[in-house]
Amino acid sequence: QNNNFNTASVRVFSLNCWGIRYLSKHCPQRYAMIGDLLSKEEHDIVLLQEVWSEKDFLNLKKKLACSHPHCHYFKSGVIGSGLAIFCKHRIHDTFLYRYSLNGYPYMAHHGDWFGGKAVGMAVIKIGSMTANVYVTHLHAEYCREKDSYLPHRVVQAWELQQFIRHTSAGADVVIVGGDLNMHPQDLGNRLLRAYTGLRDSYLETANFDGCEDGMTLIADNPFISKKELVPFEKGIRIDYILFKGSSKTDMHCDSMSTTKGSIPDHPFPYSDHEALTAELRMEPHTPTEPGHDKKSMDQDSGTLMFLCGASMMRYTATRTGIMGLALLFLELAIAAVPWLALGAEQPFPRTSFYLLAALCCAILLTTFLLYIFYTMELKSLQGAEDQMRLAVGSLQEKLRGFPLPQPYSTHRKPPEGQEPSAFDPEE
Amino acid sequence: QNNNFNTASVRVFSLNCWGIRYLSKHCPQRYAMIGDLLSKEEHDIVLLQEVWSEKDFLNLKKKLACSHPHCHYFKSGVIGSGLAIFCKHRIHDTFLYRYSLNGYPYMAHHGDWFGGKAVGMAVIKIGSMTANVYVTHLHAEYCREKDSYLPHRVVQAWELQQFIRHTSAGADVVIVGGDLNMHPQDLGNRLLRAYTGLRDSYLETANFDGCEDGMTLIADNPFISKKELVPFEKGIRIDYILFKGSSKTDMHCDSMSTTKGSIPDHPFPYSDHEALTAELRMEPHTPTEPGHDKKSMDQDSGTLMFLCGASMMRYTATRTGIMGLALLFLELAIAAVPWLALGAEQPFPRTSFYLLAALCCAILLTTFLLYIFYTMELKSLQGAEDQMRLAVGSLQEKLRGFPLPQPYSTHRKPPEGQEPSAFDPEE
Repeated sequence: QNNNFNTASVRVFSLNCWGIRYLSKHCPQRYAMIGDLLSKEEHDIVLLQEVWSEKDFLNLKKKLACSHPHCHYFKSGVIGSGLAIFCKHRIHDTFLYRYSLNGYPYMAHHGDWFGGKAVGMAVIKIGSMTANVYVTHLHAEYCREKDSYLPHRVVQAWELQQFIRHTSAGADVVIVGGDLNMHPQDLGNRLLRAYTGLRDSYLETANFDGCEDGMTLIADNPFISKKELVPFEKGIRIDYILFKGSSKTDMHCDSMSTTKGSIPDHPFPYSDHEALTAELRMEPHTPTEPGHDKKSMDQDSGTLMFLCGASMMRYTATRTGIMGLALLFLELAIAAVPWLALGAEQPFPRTSFYLLAALCCAILLTTFLLYIFYTMELKSLQGAEDQMRLAVGSLQEKLRGFPLPQPYSTHRKPPEGQEPSAFDPEE
Repeated sequence: QNNNFNTASVRVFSLNCWGIRYLSKHCPQRYAMIGDLLSKEEHDIVLLQEVWSEKDFLNLKKKLACSHPHCHYFKSGVIGSGLAIFCKHRIHDTFLYRYSLNGYPYMAHHGDWFGGKAVGMAVIKIGSMTANVYVTHLHAEYCREKDSYLPHRVVQAWELQQFIRHTSAGADVVIVGGDLNMHPQDLGNRLLRAYTGLRDSYLETANFDGCEDGMTLIADNPFISKKELVPFEKGIRIDYILFKGSSKTDMHCDSMSTTKGSIPDHPFPYSDHEALTAELRMEPHTPTEPGHDKKSMDQDSGTLMFLCGASMMRYTATRTGIMGLALLFLELAIAAVPWLALGAEQPFPRTSFYLLAALCCAILLTTFLLYIFYTMELKSLQGAEDQMRLAVGSLQEKLRGFPLPQPYSTHRKPPEGQEPSAFDPEE
């Protein structure tokens, strides 16, 4: 696969498999199709999402034993993270980061909480280069107009960029694939790209073959109901293959393609999402200037408003809990009166009494669990906000030109007759 | 603080503050003492654990505004992680990794689950050097003989080493402080040191002043009940300051000290744990050979037996749940008989009927929650085991001498008349 001396190229595949056993349509047939495709195409790196059943993963593993001898399934949460990676190159190390926020357990029909959404990392060697490969799946967006999971997804995107940034310092190249459940211009997506310097295969390549505007959830896919996509009639782009090089290695996207809703000779497509394939080329180079970890500053206005929501929910839970407690005390008081006035008749029908008591206890238990849960949510949101503030503070310090290492300032002289500008638009 | 050209030294402080408001003895007075100590001593880096209340953190922050202008409180779980860092140098970035296993919510009197134990990271610059500073607190050991939390602590130690290893590639030096709740020779501790190459200040310094054997939980501390320490009459060493340099920087521990149970002019000590102070010296150097990331292979036999325990617990929960369900059906059947045979008398006393129904529902709910919880526990254990297998596999490959980069082999010639040995004892 080496095109010339020292240059290597990798083909990366990413697909949200929609693999809910017994619920997703044609699940076993689609897995068979996916297995056939992968063993035929022999991509270097295969990043799969929503492989909810470990059995399906093990079947794939068996089928791909020759084409992709190395693989890893990331376990997390109640059901699993659904993340899997297959690789032609040996996987040297893996690491999983579970997002601190991921939906609500009582929204069982959405199921995200039970999945334990996470980002999985695998360290592989391609020739002499170390590649950190990430696969992730963020919280689904069920309704764009009234998206109650927006704070969760933004915090997930924040944690994703942090995880990638902090774990990739030793890597020559970084490859990220997965279903981000975010449109290209969504806040979380901008946060991710701005802070990590990751580039979008679709935007970087001159050689694209696939759906209009790179869409990965399209109206032409028979598994997609047209209603879900409103107001984006043709479809949306929410799956990505992102990449970046390092000070030691340049990375380019030579070509990129997506499936287009239907597959020749097959009655249905691989999944409800389209599959992505990117051909990435890596070239070692001598460092000339520090990497492109440009950070943008206008990104942190997002979480403050979310904190309100979570603390209001917790407040409601507390209030309901207190009402339940008051009711229980009232009932006990009513029961205590005839017990104290010995011999008096019990004024309360016995059945209603027990039912009411059971109701009170149920309210108390539920509100207690909710209180705990919302407290955890609030803590995660506050934690993300603190970290954002810190990042902005550190950046402002840099911009103000305090005695911190400033990679760009040494290369450039200030224009004559002018004070050195503290604000550098390129940073 | 720079001793000579390019050499820097940092004083690091670590203390488990035992800061449970209203429950820990003399909590406000002890915080005042800790604040006084810190503002007087002006350590470069202060790592605190068990600062359970954010208010106490904010009070400390106010008090240390001059001596330690930069600080961060790590939020996590229901109560918080209890982790805080105060620093003379600007904190550029922080990141929190929550351990996937951390006790049981129903063991409320142990409280670990509610704390959301984690490892916090802060990136700071000391002169021109980047230091990654970690603060953590692992699950408590309540009974060494029958330690039901052992698997949790081992998985936490595994995740800690992974987190440190993967996030510290870009750092010149690494500093870790905290209450590991593990003795020096415990499996988790060996895992941590073997995989990261971290060195123990206490073992590395020639200049130690403190309790015998570096103990940090000692019988002489008035907050410690002698019973807790049995069979270690004098005390145990469970708090650590660990460090390592990098290919660019050497790191040494010049001196180390601990408090000794009582403080002159004060009626009681700072906490039930002893405080640690280490003076670390950093020297930039030109890389001569790759770092000392020696890995030992005999460490992964630990989790397999833990998996049994967790799956047995889940099995018990399932069985109890099924019994609850059966009981509920039985009751409904008994109730249905007179309802079907119209006019027949209800044979069941109404009150007992409702009580029994409530009991069944409670059993079902509880076992359902437990089932979910144990499934998550099992997944985390399996995940850690998979990662350990992978690490061992990658290592075995290396030892076998497959075409992987072998840092040592190029420097050395095989002895004459002998085949190049595939087994390199130094790797």
